[in-house]
Amino acid sequence: MLRLAVWQCPSSPRDVAGNLARLADAAARAAAGGADVLVTPEMFVTGYDIGPVAGMAPDGEVFDAVASMTLESGVAIAYGYPELLPDGRVANAVQLVDDGRVVGAYRKTHMFGELDASRFAPGSDFPVFELRGHRVGLLICYDVEFPETVRALALAGASVVLAPTANMVPYELVSTVLVRARAYENGITVAYANYCGTEGAQVYAGLSTICGPDGRVRALAAAEGEALLIADAAGDPAPYLRDRRHDVY
Amino acid sequence: MLRLAVWQCPSSPRDVAGNLARLADAAARAAAGGADVLVTPEMFVTGYDIGPVAGMAPDGEVFDAVASMTLESGVAIAYGYPELLPDGRVANAVQLVDDGRVVGAYRKTHMFGELDASRFAPGSDFPVFELRGHRVGLLICYDVEFPETVRALALAGASVVLAPTANMVPYELVSTVLVRARAYENGITVAYANYCGTEGAQVYAGLSTICGPDGRVRALAAAEGEALLIADAAGDPAPYLRDRRHDVY
Repeated sequence: MLRLAVWQCPSSPRDVAGNLARLADAAARAAAGGADVLVTPEMFVTGYDIGPVAGMAPDGEVFDAVASMTLESGVAIAYGYPELLPDGRVANAVQLVDDGRVVGAYRKTHMFGELDASRFAPGSDFPVFELRGHRVGLLICYDVEFPETVRALALAGASVVLAPTANMVPYELVSTVLVRARAYENGITVAYANYCGTEGAQVYAGLSTICGPDGRVRALAAAEGEALLIADAAGDPAPYLRDRRHDVY
Repeated sequence: MLRLAVWQCPSSPRDVAGNLARLADAAARAAAGGADVLVTPEMFVTGYDIGPVAGMAPDGEVFDAVASMTLESGVAIAYGYPELLPDGRVANAVQLVDDGRVVGAYRKTHMFGELDASRFAPGSDFPVFELRGHRVGLLICYDVEFPETVRALALAGASVVLAPTANMVPYELVSTVLVRARAYENGITVAYANYCGTEGAQVYAGLSTICGPDGRVRALAAAEGEALLIADAAGDPAPYLRDRRHDVY
């Protein structure tokens, strides 16, 4: 079974070197907790709501640094960053790295208002990846609020969804109601890693969480303050995938 | 705006006359509270988990009695009952009656284990009806736990979903997490009317609820004890229907 680490931390805008140093430290702590994979908040490498942002190649210096961390710590890392696309646009992306190699990548599909739409090119699919013998999906923030996304991943065989986020006050319901519903209604585990504290005008809601396939909250961070949640992707899956009427919708 | 009344009560198995008398009383109380429509638990007319049950014509004596109640009270009634189908089978059904006339009808589509599958013929569609100038959908119990059902009704224009249920312990999460998520993620109001108390071996979970389109719980009954919840279908809808990526799923 996968042991998940969800890292709730403040944003440190545009401090890429400082953020990588913080990430290495969090990976070491996740390793000490026996975690298989560490999830950061959305756009962790640069910060999220920081104005126009330059894209980074998925195999550039930041990847090299994270790849080294996975080799040193033995923990896979799902990190949010601005991905430079071949056409020069930027995607709000997450990359999953294990043992020095990319094992999964995803681009945010649902744009959260002008904040996203003015800066990012949206993605358009929901791939499932293999991580240490488990089928894993990736989503980013607003994506997980739409039941279609997690359903698509679950129907494609995912048993775990890793979701970096930058969820603000007053949207606390996303953590406590929607993320929990997504886990329960699909019989899968959802790990939702949020910022705490402020970033310019944004006040982040914290409440990072790991919810199990039986709908139980396996870990929940406070609204404020840094936290490292560690919990297993375990529990009896609810039977919704078996009982859904795929013939009528 | 519609004012909704959700009636949480114990089951009284096979006591059709007694149940109709109780229903008339509840309708009078709902009228006193200014309600437009009253929702009963699932299969209220006969009780739910009562073994083999004979179907009733949708325009038979029970309908006549309920139609009279709507005329006397001025309150529409959505009541659960076993519907006799033209082929002789029985559906787990709900009928919505206003001003002496049928304005909507629905047959449970998702069978809850052998309990449903051994007794009922499942329905296969999600119609939307007009009630006092508002677009209303109907679902029954297990149906609402699947995001596809409420999404289908919302996309067809429903702003309110009325859901009779017979939700048992230990499935309390359905009331407090899934029903609330359905309302929020679709920007609609969901009224979920459950039994309390026991019925043979079943222990019902109560926790009947009315959740608004902004994800707020507008009313919530206790786990135990009869209750009549009255609340308006009001609140600012969350923007999920606008922002969903219908092009990618």
